[in-house]
Amino acid sequence: MLIAVDAAGGEYAPREVVKGAIEAAKEFPIDIALVGNKTVLEMLLRRSTRKLNITIVQASQVVMDGEEPIQSVQNKPDSSVVVGAKLVRDRIADGFVSAGSTGATVVASFLNLKAVEGLQRLAVCAVAYLNQPQPTLIIDCGVNVNCRPIFLVQFAQLSNILAEQVLDINSPRVGLLNVGEEELKGNTLAREAYQLMKKTNLNFIGNIEGFDVLKGKADVIVTDGFTGNVLIKTVEGYSQVIQSLLELGQAAKIDRYLTGTALARYIELTSAVKNLDYREYGGACLLGLEGNIVIGHGRSRAKAIKSAIYLAYHAARQGIVEAIKNGQYASE
Amino acid sequence: MLIAVDAAGGEYAPREVVKGAIEAAKEFPIDIALVGNKTVLEMLLRRSTRKLNITIVQASQVVMDGEEPIQSVQNKPDSSVVVGAKLVRDRIADGFVSAGSTGATVVASFLNLKAVEGLQRLAVCAVAYLNQPQPTLIIDCGVNVNCRPIFLVQFAQLSNILAEQVLDINSPRVGLLNVGEEELKGNTLAREAYQLMKKTNLNFIGNIEGFDVLKGKADVIVTDGFTGNVLIKTVEGYSQVIQSLLELGQAAKIDRYLTGTALARYIELTSAVKNLDYREYGGACLLGLEGNIVIGHGRSRAKAIKSAIYLAYHAARQGIVEAIKNGQYASE
Repeated sequence: MLIAVDAAGGEYAPREVVKGAIEAAKEFPIDIALVGNKTVLEMLLRRSTRKLNITIVQASQVVMDGEEPIQSVQNKPDSSVVVGAKLVRDRIADGFVSAGSTGATVVASFLNLKAVEGLQRLAVCAVAYLNQPQPTLIIDCGVNVNCRPIFLVQFAQLSNILAEQVLDINSPRVGLLNVGEEELKGNTLAREAYQLMKKTNLNFIGNIEGFDVLKGKADVIVTDGFTGNVLIKTVEGYSQVIQSLLELGQAAKIDRYLTGTALARYIELTSAVKNLDYREYGGACLLGLEGNIVIGHGRSRAKAIKSAIYLAYHAARQGIVEAIKNGQYASE
Repeated sequence: MLIAVDAAGGEYAPREVVKGAIEAAKEFPIDIALVGNKTVLEMLLRRSTRKLNITIVQASQVVMDGEEPIQSVQNKPDSSVVVGAKLVRDRIADGFVSAGSTGATVVASFLNLKAVEGLQRLAVCAVAYLNQPQPTLIIDCGVNVNCRPIFLVQFAQLSNILAEQVLDINSPRVGLLNVGEEELKGNTLAREAYQLMKKTNLNFIGNIEGFDVLKGKADVIVTDGFTGNVLIKTVEGYSQVIQSLLELGQAAKIDRYLTGTALARYIELTSAVKNLDYREYGGACLLGLEGNIVIGHGRSRAKAIKSAIYLAYHAARQGIVEAIKNGQYASE
């Protein structure tokens, strides 16, 4: 199995990407194709002492974060993100991982890969480790800022497949992000989506609210790409603070100095919010195309790159694309 | 000056409300009218040793959290929330504080108070202490789940008055919550609101993203009531965890056991995220009506009730209603 990795994408590219790829190649039974500047990548790889199953695929251009995605993808046909998407299109690679511009990855994938029939839109589903041990899936995280109710239902169905097939979540609890628990709460979009969700055979648990996100009330959180994007970025900011506080607590061996209920509370909190750091864990799957695309966090370091590669590898091994192609989706 | 307080509203009513009211009456130069069950309140007040400027206004009914707001307000004309709103309407009270059902408070206020001319909608503006020393204002937090662009501009103008007149924020930085920094990012609502915001004389700093919320990039965060509600509830869940970790760190005297950069990072974090607990600080102002209404958190304890009373008192002292009546608002 071959996973292509965008070696030019992300804030710490290419160094940390290469490092993550080397770790992944050591740990998982996969070949990796690093896509980027050949000269630079050869130099970085030469430092690695062991012989690894890593090849280099030349890409002379880079789409930078902040560039307008559609234009830049069209103007840079030899960019790492386009070359990577084409490796998947041509069935050379079984998956592609990029920590570069999310917009560019979405556009390059959309332009090069076939859309799965029966789906109205593709969507980005974040696999976020908000609670141990299971991840929480949040869909859509930003592709579709204007949605119709049917989109949300299909997002739920797509991420349900990801949750079951790839993340081993049995009968995922699907929650609709809303402003209240009651069925009639919410804006027009959420209210109509609720009615459609009820008719599916999903394990739909109804509406969930902002404070349920951290509590792990739902395995899959469904929302439009606008709210989802705000949510995931807010969560990120807070998660970093929590992660830092936990690390400092560990550094100070805080558990030695706490007793009774304070110690119990500390243990409860740390076990509840482990793995909150987005820079280290998680990744997002672009769902709805005939290709296995994983979007890493822009600030991914080696560990996060390795996690994202694992997600792509595991998704490929579990046949995510076939499962999505065989999925049943609500229609209007 | 008289501030009416809903003694029947909130999870810890009436006990904690009364406690908070007693503390407020001791600390601020105000009279307080506790609205609720006279017998119960007399009993609770009798425990207070000092003679305070607290009166009791009988209200025989209560609207519970979870009750449908419009129906329950109409069916319970002698509920504490209706009686409280009427005290403001009749200019007996200079403000009304309720930690009960937000929906019921909004409806009771809307039905009893005049709407300010020129405004399309009323909105709830949360005064959230995310960063020291200044609060961050988030508007709308849930009244208007379906919005038109002009609503968002008016929300910005309303909260700008609150920020300047009551919270002493000089030339508040107004940010539009969106999925990216660039002007053309976002859903139709955000994109159109951006164009309208530019034309105002607000200190409009453009779009802000989810991870900017905690960073204090904007003094006023403007969004629709759906996204705002999700945002504030998500923030709440995370803030509680951070607050707990900080408290545990303090209990363990963690600063004694940290050195160098770890200690510096701890000090940086603690000073950045102090006062995060919604149950203790903050409150929200209902803006757009000819009355000074403050909504406390449903889980308010005495300290939070006191803070909410202070907000109502300070808003009244600064003439918030007059300022809003004299405000200039964008029109379509």
